Amino acid sequence: MTATTRTRLAPDQRREQLLGLGLRLFAGSSIEDISIDRLCEEGGVSRGLLYHYFGSKQGFHEAVIQRAADDLIAQTAPPEGDDPIAKLSASLTAYVDYVIANHQGYRSLVLAAAGGNEGVRAIYEQARAVMIDRTFETPGVEALLVDTPATRLVVRGWVAFVEDTVLTWCDTPDGVTRDELARIVTDALPALVATLR
Amino acid sequence: MTATTRTRLAPDQRREQLLGLGLRLFAGSSIEDISIDRLCEEGGVSRGLLYHYFGSKQGFHEAVIQRAADDLIAQTAPPEGDDPIAKLSASLTAYVDYVIANHQGYRSLVLAAAGGNEGVRAIYEQARAVMIDRTFETPGVEALLVDTPATRLVVRGWVAFVEDTVLTWCDTPDGVTRDELARIVTDALPALVATLR
Repeated sequence: MTATTRTRLAPDQRREQLLGLGLRLFAGSSIEDISIDRLCEEGGVSRGLLYHYFGSKQGFHEAVIQRAADDLIAQTAPPEGDDPIAKLSASLTAYVDYVIANHQGYRSLVLAAAGGNEGVRAIYEQARAVMIDRTFETPGVEALLVDTPATRLVVRGWVAFVEDTVLTWCDTPDGVTRDELARIVTDALPALVATLR
Repeated sequence: MTATTRTRLAPDQRREQLLGLGLRLFAGSSIEDISIDRLCEEGGVSRGLLYHYFGSKQGFHEAVIQRAADDLIAQTAPPEGDDPIAKLSASLTAYVDYVIANHQGYRSLVLAAAGGNEGVRAIYEQARAVMIDRTFETPGVEALLVDTPATRLVVRGWVAFVEDTVLTWCDTPDGVTRDELARIVTDALPALVATLR
């Protein structure tokens, strides 16, 4: 047996640990700049084990992005209630808090989506579609949103607005508070939709 | 001498032709998926000539993105006039028309910006900064925009909104006309800024 500093973890724990490492690595570099050797060294696993879990570097990348997308969708689910604006506000505040707490994972997701890889872009587009559909399906939202092609276009653009605004704010908050940010991205939706009337 | 189908062009014409080819190729694929051989074959130039003009594949990519950014900025300059909304509308209509006419170059620019390459991202960020600064510096705009950190954040987010909305519309116009699209992206700015009051 060779000497090793590797920690023995149960397979699920090891997989979780590698996904966490991936979020950190892919947030700072594009996939082609990350070597499998560095990944394995930082994760304390062999190449064989990484391939066992994820098939390839690309497979690992996709698993990391899927995890970031799933977390984001789960944590920003609108709460129960009758007031669509209150639900929107709660969902957007959760979104801001998710990005604050998971800045690197979120940046991974957004950067990877535009990085030209089809598999990753599909994960991102699906997450976006879930968030857009959810906006239209929130009970009580009919008063705010009429489901037309123009409204769909605006709601999709609003998601891009939210994404960019929150990510920019994380880098340079410039005196704008978390509450102000949450209010800006919430109020943006009814303001944008109102221009269609 | 070997037989060749290459057309003899003046250096400036050849450089322009290669930039046009680059816009087409980079719009459809990420830089790492494009082979230098394919580039040279489609451009009808030798590897030596490509390197002579652009230094490297990366240098070529950056020149292509810089060209797309310069064209976009030049073609969307706000016209003379007193009414800030009319100037905004003219600039945004030019923007929509630029994207319709240069769909591939525009997509190259947006995709490349998020693709993780520092040089390309810097070109994109600079183009974005020019468009944001120009919005604040338009004479007469003071009535519409007060230059605060929150307004800067919203204007930057609005640029992301415009980018996403116009690009989505190009793929799936879904009955929304070019005039409606131009009106949506124009009206979005005062609507978003009004939420800050």
